[in-house]
Amino acid sequence: MESAPFDDREAALFARQPFGQAPWLTDGDLAIFESGAILLHLGERSEAILPAKPRRRSEAIQWAFAALNSVEMASLPWSILAFSGEARDTPAWKILDDFLKSRLQDLESVLVGREWLAGSFSIADILMADVLRLVDRLGGLAAYPACGSYLSRGTARPAFAKARADQLAHFAAADERRAN
Amino acid sequence: MESAPFDDREAALFARQPFGQAPWLTDGDLAIFESGAILLHLGERSEAILPAKPRRRSEAIQWAFAALNSVEMASLPWSILAFSGEARDTPAWKILDDFLKSRLQDLESVLVGREWLAGSFSIADILMADVLRLVDRLGGLAAYPACGSYLSRGTARPAFAKARADQLAHFAAADERRAN
Repeated sequence: MESAPFDDREAALFARQPFGQAPWLTDGDLAIFESGAILLHLGERSEAILPAKPRRRSEAIQWAFAALNSVEMASLPWSILAFSGEARDTPAWKILDDFLKSRLQDLESVLVGREWLAGSFSIADILMADVLRLVDRLGGLAAYPACGSYLSRGTARPAFAKARADQLAHFAAADERRAN
Repeated sequence: MESAPFDDREAALFARQPFGQAPWLTDGDLAIFESGAILLHLGERSEAILPAKPRRRSEAIQWAFAALNSVEMASLPWSILAFSGEARDTPAWKILDDFLKSRLQDLESVLVGREWLAGSFSIADILMADVLRLVDRLGGLAAYPACGSYLSRGTARPAFAKARADQLAHFAAADERRAN
């Protein structure tokens, strides 16, 4: 995984990613953007995060899309309005808040009976935990205890702790370079 | 591709799809929901919509995710507010309208130089054309001529015309069953 320098990051990012977003991944002569596509690519190299058996594989992939398209599709606009300080009594807030609540309620029903989304831990859980993390930080998971427990299971994994520590170290090193 | 009966559709849909959404696909003993996962599954059976060569395949997959996660992620909340009759002068509208415009501007830059998103026509174009169709219907594509031309190319394909005709016939048959 590469990163763009913070200065001139706009130009550096758009040269690699048409929507100017992180992350992207380079693997040999492949360059891939979109978190979902990157995880699918990594999953094809490791059964630890994407089972090889067709049915199990298909379930993990559908839940990876569900994390992005059924849950984040509702949580992202909600988060954008929450970050912007949108008043909680406007029609727009109500519509997008109801949209997120409906998706979280459906997810809650699923997670009441499951440790992970698709049998064993998979790329779907990496994506869904990341989506729920932001909702939780903004106070949106309080009414969904099964979602909350699932998120705790995901972030308690040593691999998550290592990935977060590595990312923070990377940011710290970049800050230090900028300060010098 | 199956469908749920309109009456009792809530129960029928939730039994097959945890977020109560169409579509889903059954293929042998596989049952798959999420449009992206369904198209990826179909693509693995036909090079006509998903190239087998790793680099080309990877590009089509990343653009399929981009259609859903970089463009629809912005167009769906915008469409929901537009459908709800949200006033166009509220802070929430401005934020989500700017979000969509930024994504369409980036896509416009890409499509100025391309016939299809990832070399030849692929699952990415099926998804992106469908995402843009709704934006266009709500008047959101006027300032993005390359996006508009791309959408026209997509919907001019005989396969699109056939799929739309089949879907409308399916709805008409369902209406007739309900009327009798």
